[in-house]
Amino acid sequence: MKMKAILSGITFFVIIFLAGCTREQPKDVGTTIRIDNIVDLTHTLTSDFPFIPVKKLTYPFALIPMATLKDNGVEANSWKIHEHLGTHTDAPNHFIANQKSLDQLELKDLIVPVVVIDIEEKASKNSDAVLTVEDIMTFEKAFGKIPDHACVMMYSGWEKHLRDSLFVGLDSQQVKHYPGFSNDAIKFLVEERNIAGIGVDVLSFDPGIDENYTGHKTLFEAGKWGVECVANLDKIPKTGATVIVAAPKVGKATGGFSRIIAVW
Amino acid sequence: MKMKAILSGITFFVIIFLAGCTREQPKDVGTTIRIDNIVDLTHTLTSDFPFIPVKKLTYPFALIPMATLKDNGVEANSWKIHEHLGTHTDAPNHFIANQKSLDQLELKDLIVPVVVIDIEEKASKNSDAVLTVEDIMTFEKAFGKIPDHACVMMYSGWEKHLRDSLFVGLDSQQVKHYPGFSNDAIKFLVEERNIAGIGVDVLSFDPGIDENYTGHKTLFEAGKWGVECVANLDKIPKTGATVIVAAPKVGKATGGFSRIIAVW
Repeated sequence: MKMKAILSGITFFVIIFLAGCTREQPKDVGTTIRIDNIVDLTHTLTSDFPFIPVKKLTYPFALIPMATLKDNGVEANSWKIHEHLGTHTDAPNHFIANQKSLDQLELKDLIVPVVVIDIEEKASKNSDAVLTVEDIMTFEKAFGKIPDHACVMMYSGWEKHLRDSLFVGLDSQQVKHYPGFSNDAIKFLVEERNIAGIGVDVLSFDPGIDENYTGHKTLFEAGKWGVECVANLDKIPKTGATVIVAAPKVGKATGGFSRIIAVW
Repeated sequence: MKMKAILSGITFFVIIFLAGCTREQPKDVGTTIRIDNIVDLTHTLTSDFPFIPVKKLTYPFALIPMATLKDNGVEANSWKIHEHLGTHTDAPNHFIANQKSLDQLELKDLIVPVVVIDIEEKASKNSDAVLTVEDIMTFEKAFGKIPDHACVMMYSGWEKHLRDSLFVGLDSQQVKHYPGFSNDAIKFLVEERNIAGIGVDVLSFDPGIDENYTGHKTLFEAGKWGVECVANLDKIPKTGATVIVAAPKVGKATGGFSRIIAVW
């Protein structure tokens, strides 16, 4: 995987370089993306997909037959769904009044470079582990500075708990325990790295124990998006890929089940 | 727009050619996509978005507040939604038993070249106009053979009727009138052009008058997908762009509201 990623990276830069040399290049040059590899970062949404339990508010996804081939000659379903189920995008209006809704996020901000910061080792020892500014520094020493306008994904290895109780991690006091970004890390990424958004392989990008959703507020005040329950982050390179956050364009939505795709 | 598209096309081929010459190229070469241009082919979904009226079955989209900043400190909504609302993808299991569901469509079949066949002139004179095999031939004479594994979009200009009664086009007998693909054209595209899928700027890819959905059955028997209520098809080049059909990965779904994006 690593070698393949490096080769892809080399080709990417070779093409950029060659494109830069040719006189046939139009003036409105954008980004050249090689698609040697496509990885789906989306979990399949089903009725048993875990979600943040908020008493009297949240509920699981349900597929409800609306018409069947047998009875109606056509198969179709209704969905019982809310905006924060499955692999989904959070829009800034989720916590901040008068901020952008999901349909107001621009595609140029949803198709961006992606980096993956791996905190699996410390998360495996502590469900409340957080990605810190120091983790970002360590990442940058190994992989170079986070590119401008990128999506920064946290990989905690939590995906392996998707079908067990650790994914939500409720303790006897009904407090959640799963890793997340520290608020300082989010503040740093917004202020010092001009990110497009962030993502996590857990239910929420604030650690489960933070019931105030501090990082959500920091991120959304800055008008940035977040993606949660992201799949397969161990199957893409740490840097060099592009992520397509295909959020559903629902008017005034605060979030929504999304198709998230990495290409490189 | 035309000139820009031609320039983009030239650059695309120049890059493909240069990439072909370099020795640094890895063996797992895929597709190089330039992103000079991004166009959103998705309509914003709101409660007044038109839909196919099927008595006692279908209903419009609704956004239902679940939590508010004022009462709960967080804003979130439930959606009243079914699988065939707004700009959406149809999966083959919509009409054919044991065919692929939406979550079973592979990403390699959803990120494909796109061509646009324009039948606006005849559609403007006849709401029941269909895209025929002859229209495909005329298109290919002008723009070259439809590439392998492409999405073939029909542009009828119907988008301008989105907010008037012509979009559904119900007559006094409650029969619908809007343009579509002829069944023969779909058969030809599946059998002779190895398409990935088709798309339309109207409610359904069968013309409104065909209450048997003949073309749906032909397309889905072949395991291909269709996209409906596609936006902005007049804003992308007739050939040379790539479409990303970001269908929601819902287990067993027959379709679903999708983010559809063209890049070139």
